[in-house]
Amino acid sequence: MRARLLEATVECLVERGFAGTSTTLVSERAGVSRGAQLHHFPTKNDLVVAAVEHLTVVRGAELAAAASRLPTGVRRTRAVLQVLGDHFASPVFFAALELWVAARTDEALLAAVAPLEQRVGREAHRLVVEALGADESQPGVRELVQATLDLVRGLGLATTISDDARRRGRILDEWAAVLDARLEEHR
Amino acid sequence: MRARLLEATVECLVERGFAGTSTTLVSERAGVSRGAQLHHFPTKNDLVVAAVEHLTVVRGAELAAAASRLPTGVRRTRAVLQVLGDHFASPVFFAALELWVAARTDEALLAAVAPLEQRVGREAHRLVVEALGADESQPGVRELVQATLDLVRGLGLATTISDDARRRGRILDEWAAVLDARLEEHR
Repeated sequence: MRARLLEATVECLVERGFAGTSTTLVSERAGVSRGAQLHHFPTKNDLVVAAVEHLTVVRGAELAAAASRLPTGVRRTRAVLQVLGDHFASPVFFAALELWVAARTDEALLAAVAPLEQRVGREAHRLVVEALGADESQPGVRELVQATLDLVRGLGLATTISDDARRRGRILDEWAAVLDARLEEHR
Repeated sequence: MRARLLEATVECLVERGFAGTSTTLVSERAGVSRGAQLHHFPTKNDLVVAAVEHLTVVRGAELAAAASRLPTGVRRTRAVLQVLGDHFASPVFFAALELWVAARTDEALLAAVAPLEQRVGREAHRLVVEALGADESQPGVRELVQATLDLVRGLGLATTISDDARRRGRILDEWAAVLDARLEEHR
């Protein structure tokens, strides 16, 4: 029942945005009584934060699995960027984006979202470091990994207005070349 | 009166977000009668789109002025990135972000926001090309400029949750080094 509520919440966030998501709508969609819903999640904020946390765990596992299937050799960096780019152009990112933006002007929500966002950021960073085989003890390498995550986040935001996968592909091609050239110096 | 309404709208978007912005609140803040407000902007969507368009024009001029004062020589690329990074960490970006995210789940708003966003994107791109003295006829250069804009957009989005100017600064240091190395090949 808890999982059904969380999945219905994510669907609502993706389809209707934060403002269009209500606990009533989520209960109906999940086929769960209002009483049961309130028992699990007393407020809308409890519900949306738990939903994005749940989503993060599920997708983190999916990302790690995708990373373990990546090719080795010269095509690896580009493949890592593809996995990341796809993730940040997916409904998972859109649901998280709704939460982040709502949190900007909602102190109580921000208090819950900020630590979650930090944890997600650290895990994504670690995943990229490992996937790229990057040596962060070398100067500039840590910043390049961070820049990579900020880049795909920026690309994901652009996707919400116009999904241009070809443009995204060309940018990631070039970014892969940059990364390989810089990381190669330290490999 | 029109300008007062638009500025009050931007303030509302920044402080209260899209959902918290209403035409009533904007009229009150601007000290303009409801009748006059409705005459200029019949709907909330008319008002918010006009406000972000207005803001874009004003800030475009400010950005161009800042670009004209940039140093020449080795510190130029980093200075260009600072101007961009500051812009995307400012209330201007937050107001636009509210609009973009709301437009994702609001077809009528998207129809108005998408062309505005395209125009803003093209102008920002042209400004960065000129400021960097980048030669887009060379392979990969266009994508590097696009990546730069996506990167600062991603950094701006991170700022909404935790404003870490030092982290941003280190990433932009590294990106300036990458850009200079890549653009130098074609200069």
